[in-house]
Amino acid sequence: MMAASDKVMALDLPKQGELTERQQSYFAKCEEKLGFIPNVLKAYAFDPAKLQAFIDMYNDLMLGDSNLTKLEREMIAVAVSSVNHCYYCLTAHGAAVRQLSNDPELGEMIAMNYRAADLDPRRKAMLDFAVKLTERPHEIEEADREALRRQGLSDRDIWDVAAVASFFNMSNRMASAVDMRPNPEYRSLAR
Amino acid sequence: MMAASDKVMALDLPKQGELTERQQSYFAKCEEKLGFIPNVLKAYAFDPAKLQAFIDMYNDLMLGDSNLTKLEREMIAVAVSSVNHCYYCLTAHGAAVRQLSNDPELGEMIAMNYRAADLDPRRKAMLDFAVKLTERPHEIEEADREALRRQGLSDRDIWDVAAVASFFNMSNRMASAVDMRPNPEYRSLAR
Amino acid sequence: MMAASDKVMALDLPKQGELTERQQSYFAKCEEKLGFIPNVLKAYAFDPAKLQAFIDMYNDLMLGDSNLTKLEREMIAVAVSSVNHCYYCLTAHGAAVRQLSNDPELGEMIAMNYRAADLDPRRKAMLDFAVKLTERPHEIEEADREALRRQGLSDRDIWDVAAVASFFNMSNRMASAVDMRPNPEYRSLAR
Amino acid sequence: MMAASDKVMALDLPKQGELTERQQSYFAKCEEKLGFIPNVLKAYAFDPAKLQAFIDMYNDLMLGDSNLTKLEREMIAVAVSSVNHCYYCLTAHGAAVRQLSNDPELGEMIAMNYRAADLDPRRKAMLDFAVKLTERPHEIEEADREALRRQGLSDRDIWDVAAVASFFNMSNRMASAVDMRPNPEYRSLAR
Amino acid sequence: MMAASDKVMALDLPKQGELTERQQSYFAKCEEKLGFIPNVLKAYAFDPAKLQAFIDMYNDLMLGDSNLTKLEREMIAVAVSSVNHCYYCLTAHGAAVRQLSNDPELGEMIAMNYRAADLDPRRKAMLDFAVKLTERPHEIEEADREALRRQGLSDRDIWDVAAVASFFNMSNRMASAVDMRPNPEYRSLAR
Amino acid sequence: MMAASDKVMALDLPKQGELTERQQSYFAKCEEKLGFIPNVLKAYAFDPAKLQAFIDMYNDLMLGDSNLTKLEREMIAVAVSSVNHCYYCLTAHGAAVRQLSNDPELGEMIAMNYRAADLDPRRKAMLDFAVKLTERPHEIEEADREALRRQGLSDRDIWDVAAVASFFNMSNRMASAVDMRPNPEYRSLAR
Repeated sequence: MMAASDKVMALDLPKQGELTERQQSYFAKCEEKLGFIPNVLKAYAFDPAKLQAFIDMYNDLMLGDSNLTKLEREMIAVAVSSVNHCYYCLTAHGAAVRQLSNDPELGEMIAMNYRAADLDPRRKAMLDFAVKLTERPHEIEEADREALRRQGLSDRDIWDVAAVASFFNMSNRMASAVDMRPNPEYRSLAR
Repeated sequence: MMAASDKVMALDLPKQGELTERQQSYFAKCEEKLGFIPNVLKAYAFDPAKLQAFIDMYNDLMLGDSNLTKLEREMIAVAVSSVNHCYYCLTAHGAAVRQLSNDPELGEMIAMNYRAADLDPRRKAMLDFAVKLTERPHEIEEADREALRRQGLSDRDIWDVAAVASFFNMSNRMASAVDMRPNPEYRSLAR
Repeated sequence: MMAASDKVMALDLPKQGELTERQQSYFAKCEEKLGFIPNVLKAYAFDPAKLQAFIDMYNDLMLGDSNLTKLEREMIAVAVSSVNHCYYCLTAHGAAVRQLSNDPELGEMIAMNYRAADLDPRRKAMLDFAVKLTERPHEIEEADREALRRQGLSDRDIWDVAAVASFFNMSNRMASAVDMRPNPEYRSLAR
Repeated sequence: MMAASDKVMALDLPKQGELTERQQSYFAKCEEKLGFIPNVLKAYAFDPAKLQAFIDMYNDLMLGDSNLTKLEREMIAVAVSSVNHCYYCLTAHGAAVRQLSNDPELGEMIAMNYRAADLDPRRKAMLDFAVKLTERPHEIEEADREALRRQGLSDRDIWDVAAVASFFNMSNRMASAVDMRPNPEYRSLAR
Repeated sequence: MMAASDKVMALDLPKQGELTERQQSYFAKCEEKLGFIPNVLKAYAFDPAKLQAFIDMYNDLMLGDSNLTKLEREMIAVAVSSVNHCYYCLTAHGAAVRQLSNDPELGEMIAMNYRAADLDPRRKAMLDFAVKLTERPHEIEEADREALRRQGLSDRDIWDVAAVASFFNMSNRMASAVDMRPNPEYRSLAR
Repeated sequence: MMAASDKVMALDLPKQGELTERQQSYFAKCEEKLGFIPNVLKAYAFDPAKLQAFIDMYNDLMLGDSNLTKLEREMIAVAVSSVNHCYYCLTAHGAAVRQLSNDPELGEMIAMNYRAADLDPRRKAMLDFAVKLTERPHEIEEADREALRRQGLSDRDIWDVAAVASFFNMSNRMASAVDMRPNPEYRSLAR
């Protein structure tokens, strides 16, 4: 039986096939490591092809090779989600910032207003770029890229900042569009 | 030697490995069918893992199984890109709307202002949802999903509208962030 | 000696006189009941006259007689502070919503996006009014007041909704203007 | 009998008690000095506690000790009210700017667009800060406070600019929420 | 010799020829009827061709045949200028509303916030249309025209509302672009 | 008989008189040179006085004497129309930029996002000014005029930039208000 708290989103979607073995073991690994399967994965699971595409892009961006630390990528995710007031992503990725930084206050500040955090100039420039790209993408010009280069970011680093910020502009909208609900476990993580 | 017109974007990215065989044959298929390789693919090609993740998600969304026609998905892509003033996506996907609809004027109207097009109520509702999701994602409520259901969209259809609109909110920002240049071939397609 | 964590705001203000006895006992009561003195009070304490005016207005609005419950007034405070991305007020009053509602998730939802919460129509209408008043005060018309009356609010209730929402539009700006820092104790309250 | 022109606001509020003697003499002083009782006071008078809290905060801010002249505080009030298109405050405080400056045109310019006025750099910086704080409070950063310090403002002066601007962000919203009507006498003052 | 108060705008423009006789007699008529030549005419007078084009369009719109009364056209002009915070047009056309309506308060309300005025539904609909056309022209749809028709406006009336609102979106910008100064005489008219 | 494609706008306007001989020969010249009469002229033709005022102002601005080339004036027209998402003007004047520049891509870029075009600093400054004047006319200050002067523009050049940008803020709104349809011939011009 499914409790109210198991609600994952506002849509009721017919299954498009069974999870692959690889996906089943991925879900099992989530259960084992996190204690739960993130609801975003359960939401996409109605269609194994969509689930796989989401996982592949997400894992490459957030866990793959990059000069940006995992914390920095999560900070970008949360700063973008704050602009978009995305309940799901602020909950899930706010927890990640608290955990990775070992600084619960930092997680709160980035989720509420990253300008309140006392960031070093490099991280401040990264979040300024991510937030401008979120609010006014059409106004990005060479000067914005130059501001990142002045803080020591390589062209590859700029790609990574842009890719994470852009990805969460997708995810925030997907979560809002279907009213995705974050797993309750996130709330107590790393407080 | 690389001509100015071969410029793909503003960033100069070090290669992270060689294209897989599957990717090489995909590029060859593009050359064969379109006469060129879309610059977005060349941009992502610096890193085969990122390229594959992008292709997989794109192809599932835009070419995979859905009750939305390919034209409708392209119309959503273009309406979203118009809000975000994305030069790359308006050029590439504007061409797709012209082609798939066999109606060059429709492509122009969606790229400039979808409200100028005389759409049937179902398509109008789809684009209204996609544009609100683009401009004010945090204001989406059950009433917005209900407006789509009233036009006969199933929950799965709503997912697909949301997924395409959300994807282009990512792609538009990625293109603006790195100043991606559309292949010149798009401009003359289906005029 | 004053630790870094005792920083209350970005301004260094000369004292304009000593706290009155009444204020000293009010601060002592805060220490006793909360375990700390809210930094907003410490900020205003440079000038006892300003401190008293702030306390008097705050206590009348948030603790005085009203048909709105204390929880409802805190929900308005947090919904307004979310629009204004006010780090201080989201932290302090987000804690109050968690505590008064005995529902930590509700506090999170109102702080991130009140539309994510499954509110009854009366509370939804109250927050819709408060948020419109925050974002576009000049567009409030009789129809907005009528929407509250249709949910059973009396004219006095409308005054109270408006007064709390307006007050936090002041407080949010004051906190942002001087970079007010919330007491760290709020973060762990009622998680 | 009450004439139409005596209408003070759109709400009909039950009295919460009688004015205190101090309040009655304050109202008498208004009548004597201004020839009328400002409608904002009549609006708050349904509840003597709320009236007193409003008067105390208002008088401290607008008439109390400060390096900002009374004119400068009124200019901030009017510039903020112009952004918020507040009919009540533009009328009442526009009159105050005309009177205190002995320059009716200045009152008009601040009410319509403070950028049209040929202000000295210190006053220009004060109004720029007040207007940014009104429009985008979450974007205020140390650089904004520094801009005021460069014009010679002390930290205390910054507090006062912020406090007046914040107060009118409250008052503007309160006036719009209840459709407060300015006393007709303001219109002809100091033209 | 030219006094400071004779300043007409921020640009110093070389004369492109002499005023025609018709224009000279038009200016003389202004002096006679108004007591002064409106500064907008003096600004355009550097080029008789531009001056004539402006006068012809202005006079047709504001004084020519229409079902909209002259007062209604001035109300549209002022409501649009309020959105655009145009100091010149609010001063000159605010005076016109005060004069034509014989109701100084109405002039003030339209200049500050037309929603504060207690307008009949037909005029309210006209100003709602003019303001939406000013703020979000791309969102005008058939439903907006229908709202005017429901208040009894003919298609020709809709054209006239649109033409006046559009014209002042031009004039407001021209005045802001060159910092046009209104003649001081407007301020005391019909107070 | 009138085909659907002959539809000029959403309004059905009674004729206010016959075209003058001068207007008839102007229309004949359009047919001869362009192969068609621009629909904006047909729209205004219901009233010969309005038509003449429009033609006179348009021709002076876009074809008259100026240091701005005709291409530059069309670029301003299109950049402004892009902000306002005006289907009519983007179609008609986008064609003009393609034609006058002999560079179809330039026309596309200005219509979609002028920041994508690799403009020289003088033209970039002109379009930056035109777009700010379109989006936030009340924020134009002396510094904005100075930015143009630094690029070598005279005060007269600034007037011309402002006048073209302002005119299209009128025309865009007029076209949106009446749903003006561009002649289909524009679409294939200079591709």
